[in-house]
Amino acid sequence: MTAWERWLADQATAREDAGLTRRLRPRAVGDPTIDLAGNDYLGLAVDPAVREAAGAAALAWGAGAAASRLVTGTLAVHAELEDELAAYLRQPAALVFSTGYHANLSVVTALADRTTRVLSDAHIHASLVDAVRLSRAQLTVVPHSDVEAVHAGLVAAAEAGERAMVLAESVYSVLGDAAPLVELAALCERYDALLVVDEAHGVGVHGPGLVATLGLAGLPHVVVTATLSKSLGAQGGAVLGSVALREHLVNRARPFIFDTGLAPAPTAGALAALRIMRSRPELGALVRERVDGLADALGVVAPAGAVLSVPMSSPRAAVAAQAAALEAGLRVGCFRPPSVPDGISRLRITASAGVPEADWQRAVATLVALVKEHQ
Amino acid sequence: MTAWERWLADQATAREDAGLTRRLRPRAVGDPTIDLAGNDYLGLAVDPAVREAAGAAALAWGAGAAASRLVTGTLAVHAELEDELAAYLRQPAALVFSTGYHANLSVVTALADRTTRVLSDAHIHASLVDAVRLSRAQLTVVPHSDVEAVHAGLVAAAEAGERAMVLAESVYSVLGDAAPLVELAALCERYDALLVVDEAHGVGVHGPGLVATLGLAGLPHVVVTATLSKSLGAQGGAVLGSVALREHLVNRARPFIFDTGLAPAPTAGALAALRIMRSRPELGALVRERVDGLADALGVVAPAGAVLSVPMSSPRAAVAAQAAALEAGLRVGCFRPPSVPDGISRLRITASAGVPEADWQRAVATLVALVKEHQ
Ligand SMILES: Cc1ncc(COP(=O)(O)O)c(C=O)c1O
Ligand SMILES: Cc1ncc(COP(=O)(O)O)c(C=O)c1O
Repeated sequence: MTAWERWLADQATAREDAGLTRRLRPRAVGDPTIDLAGNDYLGLAVDPAVREAAGAAALAWGAGAAASRLVTGTLAVHAELEDELAAYLRQPAALVFSTGYHANLSVVTALADRTTRVLSDAHIHASLVDAVRLSRAQLTVVPHSDVEAVHAGLVAAAEAGERAMVLAESVYSVLGDAAPLVELAALCERYDALLVVDEAHGVGVHGPGLVATLGLAGLPHVVVTATLSKSLGAQGGAVLGSVALREHLVNRARPFIFDTGLAPAPTAGALAALRIMRSRPELGALVRERVDGLADALGVVAPAGAVLSVPMSSPRAAVAAQAAALEAGLRVGCFRPPSVPDGISRLRITASAGVPEADWQRAVATLVALVKEHQ
Repeated sequence: MTAWERWLADQATAREDAGLTRRLRPRAVGDPTIDLAGNDYLGLAVDPAVREAAGAAALAWGAGAAASRLVTGTLAVHAELEDELAAYLRQPAALVFSTGYHANLSVVTALADRTTRVLSDAHIHASLVDAVRLSRAQLTVVPHSDVEAVHAGLVAAAEAGERAMVLAESVYSVLGDAAPLVELAALCERYDALLVVDEAHGVGVHGPGLVATLGLAGLPHVVVTATLSKSLGAQGGAVLGSVALREHLVNRARPFIFDTGLAPAPTAGALAALRIMRSRPELGALVRERVDGLADALGVVAPAGAVLSVPMSSPRAAVAAQAAALEAGLRVGCFRPPSVPDGISRLRITASAGVPEADWQRAVATLVALVKEHQ
């Protein structure tokens, strides 16, 4: 056994002993289970028009973009998507990346360096945590949605003469709560800082996202990142902001420059989904209605996003409830330590607008009974 | 103007002054220009069977995987691709990522930490540079393909009691030269280190890649990363190695865990391309024949990969030759500082097997005349 093999084996044993080993379970095509675990909040990933657009793009352009964006990997469909995304999110410009992770890595690493102060929310997504680490910026983790702590951090940065950046998610992925965006944007304006808002879980559920809905889109001190892989049903990410920001990213963002362009099918799929999202605002409204209704039925606080978290008494209880749901034809998520910021195991239930009404009604009834039994 | 706007403007001015501003030029569908700039080395991105497979997958599965791989974003087609990739590259196991960049970030960050010594080749790809930075490992950059320097680094690591990892590309992306893989693997075996080989430009051009061709596949001290976006014509990446390594990445690689699964279309596209690559080894042979013939005609050293580098006297000469090629209906690449490790501007010409023979003959004649005129 090599030293590396021993190390891998030790890590695996430690995982097993802690009951933390995760395994992949491939899903079959046409699996009839009702999916209440994914991030296809509006049901657009499987919308017939979106499938068609994605399929047609693969036939027209090929399976891949065949080069990095600055070489020959920028396709007309990328430009179209960028224009329409920017318009819908009420931003001057957009740049598309091959994942939302790349978008987050890019915006932070291309803007921040050792001389920058980053104030990052304690619940921020892994991609932004990695982005800050990669940028080598000076990091201050602020308690979750603590506006006063951000204020204090900005004062300290101003005193130290540091350029400052504040990182938040419009709707946080783990607990589904909304960030105090209006307050954060006001602070960033006052202290000449930049607010970067990850709208991964905001776009779609809140139409063009919370930044746009709150009237913060297009402000010079607010930048948005988004993913094409959740409400837009495809794959990829985007950064939205000024034309100058876009040009800067094209020239400086390493996860953009040194990466193959997003494949034609997900690009065209996201574009078709965007058009449906734009023309059918009732989809977002339906998600919010469903999530509110389910929260009410389960006696938990309604989240700002499409995903409801139900605290369970133990990791074991959460896993048992998840298994019982699957028995009943429902796929729900389950978050256990260490994937939760506060150590509490949770069922995670997505109130997707893509589930037919009758299935949704049945799902709600099943879940209410299940949670009562296992909680 | 905010402080951030001023900073962006200053950066843009500096770029303009240095003549380094890059702009995106969208390509139209069905553009008749002969593409000698991309990374579709075998022409499989636009192969009819590959397009069909990608399009059919979008219709069958939807535009996106709709969740992260550990939630419900692992599709049967991911598992199929992983099995067939591992078999073709003669490795025990494979794990697919949504970009090659994610694959590289993942393997290094999941294996290396502050206590690890990474010996990284001076020409290594940006994604591996970022990976090492993100991992916080102890980094030693070794001169390009300098086996003695790697040897010295491994001796030092062994003396310091550090676990050591060596990073190389089988075929380097910038100069197209092959790494001394046999020597590096022998050193890693001797010093109980791990050799990570990025086969982005090796797979396809050299069938299952140089690691497999040289008999190094499946060794416990050799790990391979690959991209699905070059010879496999799609998008995504993969890490290939032991079953224990795969399981470790599933459980620990943040750019795997916290990222949406690769979209169905590029997954199925890569699988279809892999099957063609496997059944038609003459495609790789044709690329190598073309690249050797063109190198001979241009009087430059033939590379180990599909991309020929032609040193030009100045960035201006390189740009002029590129423009003249485009006039003649040929798209070629152009590398200028700071994208080249040694400051020399180059034309980059891809000898893709996807170009019809008559077009290729015409291209060669045109390029020979052009380079003579502008060099
Ligand atoms: C808040 C947040 N940001 C970014 C991402 C990354 O997006 P992608 O999956 O498109 O890489 C995710 C989830 O995947 C997320 O939840
Ligand atoms: C050597 C090398 N590794 C990794 C990558 C990243 O692969 P991808 O474009 O699939 O992210 C590239 C190029 O894009 C590359 O040239």
